[in-house]
Amino acid sequence: MMRILGLDPGSIATGYGLVERRGTRVVHITHGTLRPPRGLALPERLAFLYREIARMLDEHRPELAAIERIFAGRSVRAALVLGQARGVALAAIAATGIPISEVSPQQVKLAVTGSGAAEKTQVQGMVRRLLALAAAPPRDAADALAAALCCAQQGRLWTLQQGHPTRVGERPSGRARGHVVVRVVK
Amino acid sequence: MMRILGLDPGSIATGYGLVERRGTRVVHITHGTLRPPRGLALPERLAFLYREIARMLDEHRPELAAIERIFAGRSVRAALVLGQARGVALAAIAATGIPISEVSPQQVKLAVTGSGAAEKTQVQGMVRRLLALAAAPPRDAADALAAALCCAQQGRLWTLQQGHPTRVGERPSGRARGHVVVRVVK
Repeated sequence: MMRILGLDPGSIATGYGLVERRGTRVVHITHGTLRPPRGLALPERLAFLYREIARMLDEHRPELAAIERIFAGRSVRAALVLGQARGVALAAIAATGIPISEVSPQQVKLAVTGSGAAEKTQVQGMVRRLLALAAAPPRDAADALAAALCCAQQGRLWTLQQGHPTRVGERPSGRARGHVVVRVVK
Repeated sequence: MMRILGLDPGSIATGYGLVERRGTRVVHITHGTLRPPRGLALPERLAFLYREIARMLDEHRPELAAIERIFAGRSVRAALVLGQARGVALAAIAATGIPISEVSPQQVKLAVTGSGAAEKTQVQGMVRRLLALAAAPPRDAADALAAALCCAQQGRLWTLQQGHPTRVGERPSGRARGHVVVRVVK
């Protein structure tokens, strides 16, 4: 049994999702969106984010955290803003000693939908189906749950391969379909 | 009397510098560089940074923090990396309730050297002279002290102007020479 937290950090909204791998099943625990109160300045929003992530880790005690790798196809300004929220999330998790796996957007889509090029709404729909949720989670939370699901699948792979984890790669290749590779953040 | 912390965050090295404004004088308190132990992964480096900044704030109790604005002339990758360290620094400071002033590199150079286009080594040299230090501080710490000095000067301006703070601007113009403008991070 392993409890995995997925996070999709942002300075306005941070999605989170907790799943638990029980043998070959993956079970939904909870999900939601952390939103700093409106009108807060950036430093206070980031402090809110740190505090809430710490509180959530303390409440749910995951054994692993999954967070999407940021890819370069963004503006410098967007990268800065996103980097700030992401740095806070990484620090809050690492402060508790929980290992962090970084997954690429393609890996997450592949793990959840079977295609690395799936649309956002397709991911939302599959997260709902895979976890048997009554309704599709909001986008940020769905992304967080998808990252956690991706890691849960990876965990299964590790179990199957008994100490021979999948080779680390920048992108899952065609051959890696269904064999999700996860890279630990360096 | 006002104690001001300057910070120059980075994921490898974070410079800090504390000064105290006493009437019209600015006095050096301490400075240094926070360096996570070598070999730590990024999340652990960021957790180290958060912890050490929190510890320093607790020890020195500044009333104001100064941090350089990041400007856009960087690669997306550099912005991401820097953003992560900067986000952690902002969150750690905001968690204590200390107000944060964001200063542009030009404003800092102008405040310390009299020219917004000064070289890094000139800033280091002037920081040493202004604070009567026995030796020039290392670069990261010098940048942090310069940011704190810039804010200290701003504070003096506010005192002189009695409730009419300098108009906020993106860059100090030629006319603003010697009148350093400081923008609070939003």
